[in-house]
Amino acid sequence: MKYIESKKNDEIKQLKKLASTKYIRKTGTYMVEGFHLVREADEYEQDFVQVLVTEKYAEDRLVKKYHDIAVTVSEDVAKELSETKTPQGIFAVLKVNNTESLSELTGQWVMLDDVQDPGNVGTIVRTADAAGYDGIITSLDSADFYQPKVQRSMQGSQFHLPIYRMDIHKAIDLAKESELTIYGSEVNEQAKPYNELEKIDNYALVMGNEAHGVTQDVLNACDENIYIPILGKAESLNVAVAAGVLMYGLQTL
Amino acid sequence: MKYIESKKNDEIKQLKKLASTKYIRKTGTYMVEGFHLVREADEYEQDFVQVLVTEKYAEDRLVKKYHDIAVTVSEDVAKELSETKTPQGIFAVLKVNNTESLSELTGQWVMLDDVQDPGNVGTIVRTADAAGYDGIITSLDSADFYQPKVQRSMQGSQFHLPIYRMDIHKAIDLAKESELTIYGSEVNEQAKPYNELEKIDNYALVMGNEAHGVTQDVLNACDENIYIPILGKAESLNVAVAAGVLMYGLQTL
Repeated sequence: MKYIESKKNDEIKQLKKLASTKYIRKTGTYMVEGFHLVREADEYEQDFVQVLVTEKYAEDRLVKKYHDIAVTVSEDVAKELSETKTPQGIFAVLKVNNTESLSELTGQWVMLDDVQDPGNVGTIVRTADAAGYDGIITSLDSADFYQPKVQRSMQGSQFHLPIYRMDIHKAIDLAKESELTIYGSEVNEQAKPYNELEKIDNYALVMGNEAHGVTQDVLNACDENIYIPILGKAESLNVAVAAGVLMYGLQTL
Repeated sequence: MKYIESKKNDEIKQLKKLASTKYIRKTGTYMVEGFHLVREADEYEQDFVQVLVTEKYAEDRLVKKYHDIAVTVSEDVAKELSETKTPQGIFAVLKVNNTESLSELTGQWVMLDDVQDPGNVGTIVRTADAAGYDGIITSLDSADFYQPKVQRSMQGSQFHLPIYRMDIHKAIDLAKESELTIYGSEVNEQAKPYNELEKIDNYALVMGNEAHGVTQDVLNACDENIYIPILGKAESLNVAVAAGVLMYGLQTL
């Protein structure tokens, strides 16, 4: 197995760039870190490009499986690549999924209209996974799924359900063509309280930007606009919490 | 009005220390920043110790109201005190609330058993406020309410509902004496799905640490242990999302 000692190695410098969305999009690859995620990537048959491990894991069964594309690195390099203070010492470079176009939606989908905080996007994907949703679509200006901060909050849920990125209007059109009911979420007492809806099987729930909510033209295109009743004095909810309340609320009507 | 130009001024150095929980506890004071929070602090009759503003706000009506304790500061000092990159230029030092002991609980309460991420604690307080809860109690080892990162997520909800900090076992005892039903939350399919509960008016919901959940002796002391059904493949939920799902779930049974 090849060994890379210096964090100034050119290959390592390139891999470091996978922290940026721009470089992830350019290469169509992203990096996951830690045994749990690398194991899940393997279990869910992700497309592996490279595996990097510190020497202590060179003989690990999982690493041996990817022997052809595995590289050992120094602790120094592991620290350089890691998003954490005490790296486990295992990384995988994977191909970005779901780059083909979607032709139909069935079941329950979440759509994000410019949700920009990486922690919010990642947490919403994790919650959609827990709540049994069929997939997620984000608008082009939402935080990218594969950037490290989103991944930290997603905790591997990208392996469990399909996640797509596309123009939000195209996503709405696709939901309409697929005969999903589209729920837009608003902080607006004129909208319908989510807990007064009838349970249905096929729908898309649209969540909006942290500051501005769902854009007006997207709300206009929705079949029903819904809100979470504010029972106390707060003005609104964090968008990841609101998404959780609505996702579980709609699934357990 | 006194004017402070240098960020090396001794008073400013002391105020900077209010970013630390230790100093907040030592002085019994904390700092809020920005017009929205300072205005809310005034509206909800908080105990003001000092107001600091840049010169452009020296004639503001709200600042004039606190003339006796107001100080003008340079933009440089505002930047030094601020948690944001572009400070609005208004700060207030307030007394910490609810330092007296609680004698009885009524209605719906949230208890945090060592929730340690400041963003999670702040978001849970904000959600409890939105969901119409009557108050929050955190264990001694939870993130402190008044530290800047908690405040950023709380968005002023500390003015809307009482928040206390005490030994978690004392909090459980108090809930029992007050005849609240105590729900412990678990990631455990043996517990009861929250959406199968009967609606009641007086209860305490206990949320646990990010990694370890609610401690076993606290779970043992609860009247009923509840869980959020995992309908997909995620292993668990973020604790602030779980708290939101449960708080709204229990309020809308």
